[in-house]
Amino acid sequence: MADKKKMVEAITSMEEDFAKWYTDIVKKADLADYSSVRGCTVVRPYGCAIWENIQHDLDGRFKATGHENVMMPMFIPEGLLQKEKDHVEGFAPEVAWVTHGGEEKLTERLCVRPTSETLFCEHYANIIHSYRDLPKLYNQWCSVVRWEKTTRPFLRTCEFWWQEGHTMHETAEEAMAETERMLNVYADFCEESLAIPVTKGRKTKKEQFAGAEATYTIEAMMHDGKALQSGTSHYFGDGFARAFDITFQGRDNKPQYPHQTSWGMSTRIIGAIIMTHGDNDGLVLPPAIAPVQVIVVPVAQHKEGVLEKAGEITEKLKSFCRAKMDDSDNSAGWKFAEYEMKGVPLRLEIGPRDIEQNQCVLLRRDNREKTVVSLDELEAKVPELLRAVHDGLYQKALANREARTWTARTFDELKALAAEKSGFFKTMWCGDEACELRVKEEAGLTSRCMPFEQERIGDVCPICGRPATTSIIWGRAY
Amino acid sequence: MADKKKMVEAITSMEEDFAKWYTDIVKKADLADYSSVRGCTVVRPYGCAIWENIQHDLDGRFKATGHENVMMPMFIPEGLLQKEKDHVEGFAPEVAWVTHGGEEKLTERLCVRPTSETLFCEHYANIIHSYRDLPKLYNQWCSVVRWEKTTRPFLRTCEFWWQEGHTMHETAEEAMAETERMLNVYADFCEESLAIPVTKGRKTKKEQFAGAEATYTIEAMMHDGKALQSGTSHYFGDGFARAFDITFQGRDNKPQYPHQTSWGMSTRIIGAIIMTHGDNDGLVLPPAIAPVQVIVVPVAQHKEGVLEKAGEITEKLKSFCRAKMDDSDNSAGWKFAEYEMKGVPLRLEIGPRDIEQNQCVLLRRDNREKTVVSLDELEAKVPELLRAVHDGLYQKALANREARTWTARTFDELKALAAEKSGFFKTMWCGDEACELRVKEEAGLTSRCMPFEQERIGDVCPICGRPATTSIIWGRAY
Repeated sequence: MADKKKMVEAITSMEEDFAKWYTDIVKKADLADYSSVRGCTVVRPYGCAIWENIQHDLDGRFKATGHENVMMPMFIPEGLLQKEKDHVEGFAPEVAWVTHGGEEKLTERLCVRPTSETLFCEHYANIIHSYRDLPKLYNQWCSVVRWEKTTRPFLRTCEFWWQEGHTMHETAEEAMAETERMLNVYADFCEESLAIPVTKGRKTKKEQFAGAEATYTIEAMMHDGKALQSGTSHYFGDGFARAFDITFQGRDNKPQYPHQTSWGMSTRIIGAIIMTHGDNDGLVLPPAIAPVQVIVVPVAQHKEGVLEKAGEITEKLKSFCRAKMDDSDNSAGWKFAEYEMKGVPLRLEIGPRDIEQNQCVLLRRDNREKTVVSLDELEAKVPELLRAVHDGLYQKALANREARTWTARTFDELKALAAEKSGFFKTMWCGDEACELRVKEEAGLTSRCMPFEQERIGDVCPICGRPATTSIIWGRAY
Repeated sequence: MADKKKMVEAITSMEEDFAKWYTDIVKKADLADYSSVRGCTVVRPYGCAIWENIQHDLDGRFKATGHENVMMPMFIPEGLLQKEKDHVEGFAPEVAWVTHGGEEKLTERLCVRPTSETLFCEHYANIIHSYRDLPKLYNQWCSVVRWEKTTRPFLRTCEFWWQEGHTMHETAEEAMAETERMLNVYADFCEESLAIPVTKGRKTKKEQFAGAEATYTIEAMMHDGKALQSGTSHYFGDGFARAFDITFQGRDNKPQYPHQTSWGMSTRIIGAIIMTHGDNDGLVLPPAIAPVQVIVVPVAQHKEGVLEKAGEITEKLKSFCRAKMDDSDNSAGWKFAEYEMKGVPLRLEIGPRDIEQNQCVLLRRDNREKTVVSLDELEAKVPELLRAVHDGLYQKALANREARTWTARTFDELKALAAEKSGFFKTMWCGDEACELRVKEEAGLTSRCMPFEQERIGDVCPICGRPATTSIIWGRAY
């Protein structure tokens, strides 16, 4: 472990085996570990610190838009889950069932929540009486369970952590505006804090959330060209409200059904960060959510004054960013490799010669650019470089997406592209599920979304030749 | 709901029915609501905001003492739970069992974690290899499930939210020091942030955590004289390490077992806050964890300039405390009652005459003391009054505890006191469980703790007459 080469060799290169490269990073950057619980992982301190930063950032955005947090039970009685027909059909096959409490057999099974619409609805029925009680803008941070057959850390696990917003509104228009607003909150978060460009759009009926009238999504492209659905926002109309008998007295004094939304983002997004920004030296973290933004590595630290100066600089850095010094007795080379693996955005190197000249070296993780900086300028230069890392990551990801986005005007063209390339494939579409299924069967692609930014690629659906109603993006997805 | 009297009448007085008073506050201060899930509650936005403040405060104390957060699976395979004999005996009777995932019956049942020692141990066995890997100082925030027969919001629910620290150390001494250190962190938090005086001590063997070698506790006294165990810290020795085969290479190059602790504090503490500080007008919140520290109530708000000035003051307050203005069209009287019910520490009243005189009225929730304060002095006066509320609450709680603490020198004296009083009863004790059981049977009291601050009340155990080894506190507990 003492030299850089040795550590770097230990990661599979992404060109060789992208899936293996991914799990190597999860393991070697100390993000997560396997457990003996089927499909469940242990999120280790470094992974957990990333998630805490994500939570903190998102939670601030939710509160700034008027949302409040609540904590709901983790169990849903079977009868409650069954109240909304489409919803139970979508989720019942993949839930974990509690049948015994202590030594007694339960009279009604409880499922461990796969999502909490039903619990929120039961509560809303208790607390919503008048239009004055609306809107209700609730969110919860928790873990949920879905009995997945194949799992991968962060991307798909039987238990995962997330937030789920559930809101109730007086009118359909308000609920639709909320659905869109929260999709924008997610998109802004991805672009501003994670440096991940996303495509906003609507899911096809086939890919819609169980019980929703409309599902909006943000789709990100991973380094290998595959798509990752990074956050979704659903409009429910009054379907659940009717099923759960939630009514309120309207402004006209008549009973009405409220209109509902839900929206969620999960620990999957950590998988998106890895696969958007990571490279063959390991993780690369966007500064906004990096647990350590600047790692201070003293060079020739046994020499007089080096550790003291490095410590002093670290304290100074801590007043305006998340900084840490590694003064362990590992070699500088080992430390370089270690914090590259962990994706720390900036490395600050300082040795005896630097001290003499009142300077240090700052190295960007994203492009390895070195800058010599005067110690008097740190307060200005470090934030500037952190912003540069963010912008560099964003531009690189955007360039990858642009290079891997193709347009097809015929079905043959789509099939040929799909056979050769990995990325986003744009076509027109008639809106018929039959065509969507043919694309799946014959081109191996699923619909990612009907983008909000519509393009006019042609007039007809290239699959069936009938008039097109929308442009659509196809891809392969995680 | 429009006048104060009506609202206040709606709460049962604590002298009339303490249990009803408690649940009235939970409901009317919008802290929690019942759900159709057996023994589980919905924690509403106001209750959740209190818990978030508690989390934030405690988490800062954990991080300041070098702890890191992780996230473990919520399930424990039956075989894993059974590895440590005493532990499984303690918990198996009260866990919820998952027997089916989706449509398939599981080959091994999974319990929903009642506590996570076993999961942490499994993980520690994977990641601890050398003395250089120690200590491991981990914590997690999550909810756990224990199948309780009778439940009450916050105090005892089948699912509750908590943090559980789990640490591993090279030596027994280090682990014991950690056990004590974390008990002190809890005690300091209770006294400094919750204004709840606590008694630190050790639990008797009978009351010890399942699988622990020693359990330390902080015991708080509620308004009615009953005790509430508010936080516990356990020393495990190397019992779990042996059961889970966790070894590390010691400084002497030989394999050794690490020494372990765990410690937890839960949403129960919200019950402690209610029952320590609450009064017949509702909740009274210690300022450090109050979601709103100052509620601004404009008086005669329809008069010109009142709302503007009140809004301006609220913005100013927000720069140094958590402030909120209620400019709804409810009457001032209704607002007064509402925020008293919600326990907001300070009320700021401002009307046209105050504005003329560049002043406002600040009213303390704890003792209803009014202070007229110049608008130019808010930045100094508000923090001062918040501190005064904290101190006032602490002193009142301490006085209650002192007034309800009795010393008994004979068993008859103890029984007579227990029959008449509610509070803490101090005696000497021989350390024999037989005597502890007699106190339970004949006086209806359980042991709360053997306090760290030992007293010499006499030389013999008043129950059996044999030599005493310790002083002990008895009581009735939530």
